[in-house]
Amino acid sequence: MAHLGSIPKAAVFRLSLYLRELLGLHDKGMKTISSSNLANLLGLAGAQVRKDLAYFGQFGYPGVGYQVQELIGDLRRILGTDRVWDVVLIGCGNLGRALASYKGFRKQGFQIVGAFDSDPKKIGKSIGELTVQPMNELADTVTRTGSRIAILCVPADQAQEAATQAAAGGIRGVLNFAPASITLPANVVESSVDLAIRLEQLTFQLRSMT
Amino acid sequence: MAHLGSIPKAAVFRLSLYLRELLGLHDKGMKTISSSNLANLLGLAGAQVRKDLAYFGQFGYPGVGYQVQELIGDLRRILGTDRVWDVVLIGCGNLGRALASYKGFRKQGFQIVGAFDSDPKKIGKSIGELTVQPMNELADTVTRTGSRIAILCVPADQAQEAATQAAAGGIRGVLNFAPASITLPANVVESSVDLAIRLEQLTFQLRSMT
Repeated sequence: MAHLGSIPKAAVFRLSLYLRELLGLHDKGMKTISSSNLANLLGLAGAQVRKDLAYFGQFGYPGVGYQVQELIGDLRRILGTDRVWDVVLIGCGNLGRALASYKGFRKQGFQIVGAFDSDPKKIGKSIGELTVQPMNELADTVTRTGSRIAILCVPADQAQEAATQAAAGGIRGVLNFAPASITLPANVVESSVDLAIRLEQLTFQLRSMT
Repeated sequence: MAHLGSIPKAAVFRLSLYLRELLGLHDKGMKTISSSNLANLLGLAGAQVRKDLAYFGQFGYPGVGYQVQELIGDLRRILGTDRVWDVVLIGCGNLGRALASYKGFRKQGFQIVGAFDSDPKKIGKSIGELTVQPMNELADTVTRTGSRIAILCVPADQAQEAATQAAAGGIRGVLNFAPASITLPANVVESSVDLAIRLEQLTFQLRSMT
């Protein structure tokens, strides 16, 4: 296997897309698929699938292709989602509340075990089965649950402070929904979600159709 | 300019990333940037930025690089976000309500002008300045406002029906937050958002650090 740090982010992102596609195929009862058919489903060249997987080892069988269920398991192991990850939520506004009940997280192995906010009016309120806790309880919850990941959905002007507190509390990965850049210690990774980017991709397509 | 349909989706996606980065640089007062510096900020090879932009024409100045503000304008024109797009929201649960107040949409030129739900208990309720309307009013609102895009945040088992109604009502682009595949007529484009994918990318990075 290639050194993990040397693998292009885009290749890792495509592994997630392969996994989604394979889960859909598995639901439809498909047992095997060739690399070129899998690539076609995603609008990629067949060589791309083989190249991306080659970073991680040898998959598939000559003349057969990939065993769908086996490759699902392999991709989950590679991506780290062959286990359940405990996650904390920071920021309990509309978006935080929506994400707390987003079934897609649980389905992919993410379980929200704590919800935090700095707003005294939100603390003590219920979000599903959770009770909103003050930020000064974050470190304790992280230690107790072993959570490594925080979902950050605070307003832009509170993002840096919340991220800094999360890192100080033992969080090692931040999924940032706040529309703001944040700076984190070198031992903490960040992935940011900009919901408007997807809309922009749609408008490009709409323009090119007219 | 290359034929728009022949441009790789991944290149168009990177245009959005360049735009975000340039907006940040502009906020910091930067006037110009070289293609290799812009690429470095995003972990890409310098040639990638030049190659992606070359699909759309000639940008930048020899020995100077790109004028930040000018390239922001060019990218907005290319992506279609040099104007405001009216958008309708279908599905007014937690996620729908959160998206209705998501400031990042407005910031990038998207304005939600109607909110719809099939649940009689939600119809008539307020979401910000909007009132939730029944699905049978969708076509009228689309016609009246000229909306082309729908943000779909209904449960998975209602996604196909809602998407079909949206397309019949005149919608030409669907941003799908429902964790379900949908089939649309050939003249309607779709972009789907799977929030769990970003978490998966984080767990991959966390694994590779330990």
